[in-house]
Amino acid sequence: VADDSTTATRLRLRDYATIGAMSAIVLSIGDELVLGQTVDTNSAYLSAELASRGIATVYHQTVADDQTVIANAIGLAAEAAELVIISGGIGPTEDDLTRQALAQVLEQPLVTHEPSLRWIEGFFSRRSRAMPERNKMQAMHPRGSAVITNHQGTAPGIKVEFKRATIYVTPGVPHEMRAMFERSIVPELGAMTGSGRAILSTTMHTFGLGESDVAERLGPLMSRDRNPKVGTTVSDAIVSVRVRSESEDEQRASMALKETVEQVIVELGPIVYGRDHETIQQAVIGLLQEKRLTVTTAESCTGGLLGQMLTDVPGSSDVYHGGWVMYNNEMKVKHLGVSESLIEAHGVVSACVAKAMAAGAVERSGADLGVSITGIAGPSGGSPQKPVGSVWIALIRRGQAPQALLVQMPGDRSAIRNRSAKAAAQLIRFHLLGVPLETMTWGRLESADQS
Amino acid sequence: VADDSTTATRLRLRDYATIGAMSAIVLSIGDELVLGQTVDTNSAYLSAELASRGIATVYHQTVADDQTVIANAIGLAAEAAELVIISGGIGPTEDDLTRQALAQVLEQPLVTHEPSLRWIEGFFSRRSRAMPERNKMQAMHPRGSAVITNHQGTAPGIKVEFKRATIYVTPGVPHEMRAMFERSIVPELGAMTGSGRAILSTTMHTFGLGESDVAERLGPLMSRDRNPKVGTTVSDAIVSVRVRSESEDEQRASMALKETVEQVIVELGPIVYGRDHETIQQAVIGLLQEKRLTVTTAESCTGGLLGQMLTDVPGSSDVYHGGWVMYNNEMKVKHLGVSESLIEAHGVVSACVAKAMAAGAVERSGADLGVSITGIAGPSGGSPQKPVGSVWIALIRRGQAPQALLVQMPGDRSAIRNRSAKAAAQLIRFHLLGVPLETMTWGRLESADQS
Repeated sequence: VADDSTTATRLRLRDYATIGAMSAIVLSIGDELVLGQTVDTNSAYLSAELASRGIATVYHQTVADDQTVIANAIGLAAEAAELVIISGGIGPTEDDLTRQALAQVLEQPLVTHEPSLRWIEGFFSRRSRAMPERNKMQAMHPRGSAVITNHQGTAPGIKVEFKRATIYVTPGVPHEMRAMFERSIVPELGAMTGSGRAILSTTMHTFGLGESDVAERLGPLMSRDRNPKVGTTVSDAIVSVRVRSESEDEQRASMALKETVEQVIVELGPIVYGRDHETIQQAVIGLLQEKRLTVTTAESCTGGLLGQMLTDVPGSSDVYHGGWVMYNNEMKVKHLGVSESLIEAHGVVSACVAKAMAAGAVERSGADLGVSITGIAGPSGGSPQKPVGSVWIALIRRGQAPQALLVQMPGDRSAIRNRSAKAAAQLIRFHLLGVPLETMTWGRLESADQS
Repeated sequence: VADDSTTATRLRLRDYATIGAMSAIVLSIGDELVLGQTVDTNSAYLSAELASRGIATVYHQTVADDQTVIANAIGLAAEAAELVIISGGIGPTEDDLTRQALAQVLEQPLVTHEPSLRWIEGFFSRRSRAMPERNKMQAMHPRGSAVITNHQGTAPGIKVEFKRATIYVTPGVPHEMRAMFERSIVPELGAMTGSGRAILSTTMHTFGLGESDVAERLGPLMSRDRNPKVGTTVSDAIVSVRVRSESEDEQRASMALKETVEQVIVELGPIVYGRDHETIQQAVIGLLQEKRLTVTTAESCTGGLLGQMLTDVPGSSDVYHGGWVMYNNEMKVKHLGVSESLIEAHGVVSACVAKAMAAGAVERSGADLGVSITGIAGPSGGSPQKPVGSVWIALIRRGQAPQALLVQMPGDRSAIRNRSAKAAAQLIRFHLLGVPLETMTWGRLESADQS
């Protein structure tokens, strides 16, 4: 779909199909999805999870709250794949019809599952409420199907075998669906894939290089027929490298995975900041905690985004005591001690102003490290010498000389601000790891003609 | 899908079906979607746009880059609906197979469309590059189909009639798809729906009440058989009210829409902050610009999120010169002049500390207005007296007494921070509109026992 050559380096569906992997179909039920009121994120989550376990999703389908349409979709899916995961349509309202549609396809009546009924009654009584009559429907399931406990809400899930497929029905609420998938479905997938093959995967996240540069550095590691297989994806300027290891033997799969992960890290170096669910701000906060150092921020064009990112991490108050959002020149002068003549001589988007901002924040806060961001986020304010997207980021360690980096960010206002905050976080990481900033190929270190 | 009674008040698919509306099916093509590497946002966009024009989407389907699977999906869709919109799979790579699948279903050969070929060659030559051989495929289309110009990229779209349906194929890249939809497909929809009926819609956004409270206030305005029809949706604590007006006559539809919008505003009052694509931060910045007033921020638990939101708006520098992220007590004392004894006596999450923070920021910045946020975002740090989610927001107008509001925010750390920043923005709006803060039923104004 993408119109550049990086497509070729991505994991494709056929990479899964070639190993004779189990096939899956993901159905999402709900008028709010079909009407575009809500974006369906369940399907992407489920198919990414399935893919990482070597299961190929053939298609997703999003269906309205209409019993006949749901029943048709289930019938087709059960013929076309071995695993069908359905989310949504099992709430207590008259619009929730997945249960009824499944019963229709199976040609079985709905029967009450007594333990579920007691669970739902308990769910309400623990909240000092009487169970509404209509919630009784949630304890029903097609005769012959199994019930899956919902530890997060009132709607139990359903499991049943039909035609080629094992069918699972889960709630549509994302956190309930995810909890049920992880707790009750994942443990059964190993036995179902049945090949006895172990499939392990992990993802490493990077910031600082584009997807094609990452692919170039990885070189032969990304060849299509390699095992473990290595592929890239990109989202919000974070390039992620997924490694998928497959073997007859779990220990062998695990060792091969570990070895490839190490090779990827050798090739990519310190731009790799985390694994799986780790964010760049978690990585930064973790390193600061480990080294018992504090950081402060002085932001201009990002307007508080870097502070917000850092404090996104619970426990960040140990190492981040606060910072300054100094959006105009006067505030920079008055509260960070940036000299007016510096701004007049070099402009507010310059190495020396960035360095003065960082120094002022460190001096005033008593933090060990200070980082500053000053740039042109657009849409207006650019010039031929300093186009929109020009951003200076400076870092100072108390008692040392500050350093400043010029980065030319692509994209719109929101993308420029987002990348600037991530670049500042990466700059802190590099400093804490002792990596010379000269190796940050995505920016230019200050030189006399730039400031 | 939602497990509360508010579902009944939402616009449902059958609300569209009852008017005998045209039915649509939306297909998205791409391995990256089926594998969950990318969340499909095209389907939600297209079906929301179609719904607002009275066209009911029966289902979305997301299909892998597999010619047979795509062909099957197209064949089924063309039997099941009158309008089929397909996005993706028309790039230049060997993985892009939508064009070929469509030709297979139509049983027509692919032929070259000479003007498209010249357009694509021009696209590359304008960028001083030679056209790669594989891009020639993008100028091909099934014999008998029409070609739609792509003003944003190299892949032209395709239009063809087949079975019950008019089929449109668009690029998968969201901005190219949207541009083609708006420019080339929307103008044809009026003639296709053919009823000569005018359908107009608009959405109003609110912050401060839950979805069920909004529904209760709207009362009979939300009755199912009303025209204009009124429905609600909720996303990130923003409750939106959609009004859809239908008539034989465009002027009558427009007048009825206007009248219902006014009734909604009367019922909901100042919690309505904007229409259609307007954000709460745009509304705040717009009001400040209109009244030539400036605001400053003093944030604790939100860590810079409010500053980031306000500076999200281009031109915000006129009215927002900066603020403080004072995450720990010492920073609040040292840089905002909050007295240590106040913190010791009342705790840092209290009305008087919130007010002192706002006052300190106004004094130091010279802004006309100051707003502060101090609260417990969790997951830890709560107590029986001040549970996680307790947030004080204070507002001060230079020369006037500060006011403070206690809000108990539901949700996790991220939701609490998000709602706190939006509540602060709403507080600024209320002040600028001269609405007494006492009317903010979603918080409690300071009283002696709370601080």
